[in-house]
Amino acid sequence: MSQTMIQYEGKIAQIVQEDPMLQFLLYAGDNALITGHRCSEWCGHGPILEQDIAISNIALDYIGAARNFYQLAATRIQAKDPSLEVTEDTLAYLRDAWDFKNLLIAELPNGDWAQTTIRVYFISSFQWLFYQQLTQSSDADVAAIAEKTLKEVKYHLRWSREWVIRLGDGTEESAKRLRQALTFLWPFTGEAFKEASYETATSSATTIQLAKLHELWKQELQEVFAEAGLEVPTQQAFQSGGKTGKHTEYLGYILAEMQFLQRAYPGASW
Amino acid sequence: MSQTMIQYEGKIAQIVQEDPMLQFLLYAGDNALITGHRCSEWCGHGPILEQDIAISNIALDYIGAARNFYQLAATRIQAKDPSLEVTEDTLAYLRDAWDFKNLLIAELPNGDWAQTTIRVYFISSFQWLFYQQLTQSSDADVAAIAEKTLKEVKYHLRWSREWVIRLGDGTEESAKRLRQALTFLWPFTGEAFKEASYETATSSATTIQLAKLHELWKQELQEVFAEAGLEVPTQQAFQSGGKTGKHTEYLGYILAEMQFLQRAYPGASW
Repeated sequence: MSQTMIQYEGKIAQIVQEDPMLQFLLYAGDNALITGHRCSEWCGHGPILEQDIAISNIALDYIGAARNFYQLAATRIQAKDPSLEVTEDTLAYLRDAWDFKNLLIAELPNGDWAQTTIRVYFISSFQWLFYQQLTQSSDADVAAIAEKTLKEVKYHLRWSREWVIRLGDGTEESAKRLRQALTFLWPFTGEAFKEASYETATSSATTIQLAKLHELWKQELQEVFAEAGLEVPTQQAFQSGGKTGKHTEYLGYILAEMQFLQRAYPGASW
Repeated sequence: MSQTMIQYEGKIAQIVQEDPMLQFLLYAGDNALITGHRCSEWCGHGPILEQDIAISNIALDYIGAARNFYQLAATRIQAKDPSLEVTEDTLAYLRDAWDFKNLLIAELPNGDWAQTTIRVYFISSFQWLFYQQLTQSSDADVAAIAEKTLKEVKYHLRWSREWVIRLGDGTEESAKRLRQALTFLWPFTGEAFKEASYETATSSATTIQLAKLHELWKQELQEVFAEAGLEVPTQQAFQSGGKTGKHTEYLGYILAEMQFLQRAYPGASW
């Protein structure tokens, strides 16, 4: 509550604009922050105490991962211009929707428990592969965050996989709801594999190969969906835009809620 | 999502009614659950990412402690009548406001950050002493939960103490807000030390001596308030009722939010 923060604008935005690795860090951080925020909405509202705690812990893992990426980005921005005062909070709380790079799938509403858990499954199964490649990055700081995050994602993936199978292979009602969630979310599952300019520009440093990831991800899905009694949809037309700052209206509501305090009381320094 | 639950009524309520130790377990569990729920409302809304995570972790500790007390109570209820199906979730989600025994201070609104942190301070400074005595309980299960919870409470107390001092000894605005929070909350700080019938009836087993706790608690407050530049109020008329099921309207809203899923979809077994 005691730090002062400057707006994310002018100089900071320009530094980010000129450095694809900074954009990549924000992309990774934003995916974690927005997914974490959605999961956190279940905190205190879970259907069962045990699962309330489970999804809230997942939310905290995600927000923790976001902090790591934002801290690294903030340090590097400041290194480029030591006169700037940039922290993780500047990046989380003082950017506008068009500066956020998260995948659209992360910002969609939670819906019911089926939609929530299959969304975590889609995101964590992608991240499980994504972070594995990222641990090979020639950028040691990035590789270290990937290594750390991977341990958490492994748990998120296991947890969400189990829910997808449990609901898909559960009652008629649970299977129906899971299919509905799949229909709603599927058009948003392709964006992760569509390369943004900052991914192309950083690919030799990050070692991320999206085409390869996509193949591995489809295999993962085949296996889990088979167990859950779900068909992998054939639809190949995907929504995109989030990675380059073109978001659904949902993100605006998330930011309004999340950023209210910082914007109402800049620096929250009282 | 797969278990079925029966209502908390008739047989279960009667078993609790006849056993003061069960009531004591619910009292301890309810304090933790409702405090945890209030803290969880900050999840994704904290003023700073680091503190958002801190208070969300505190929320999870509280909800975890509630689970321990409810699980023990559920096991003992079921032991008395094996035909009943009672779980921690029955006790968390299927009781009405008049069956909740939490202190009124736990259910009051979060207010601003000052009110939130000094409330956690009031509750955790009480619990720090309460659980210490409870570790001496002749009831080994209860002593074990107290032992486990004490480690977490130690952290909550340190965290909230630091905030009280930081805000009290901070800016003019922060000190003003802290004093306002103190004025609002103070009349609710005495209830913890007013013995309920189930506390009297279980005192030889729990080893809890409320008068002794009250003295120790006042010493704790003297020290911390001195550092924070706060006066300990002299007002000695305290609100009470929560411990015996007479709650403010706030609890109803909390339960409506928290129990909605279970009540809308009983057993949430889809």
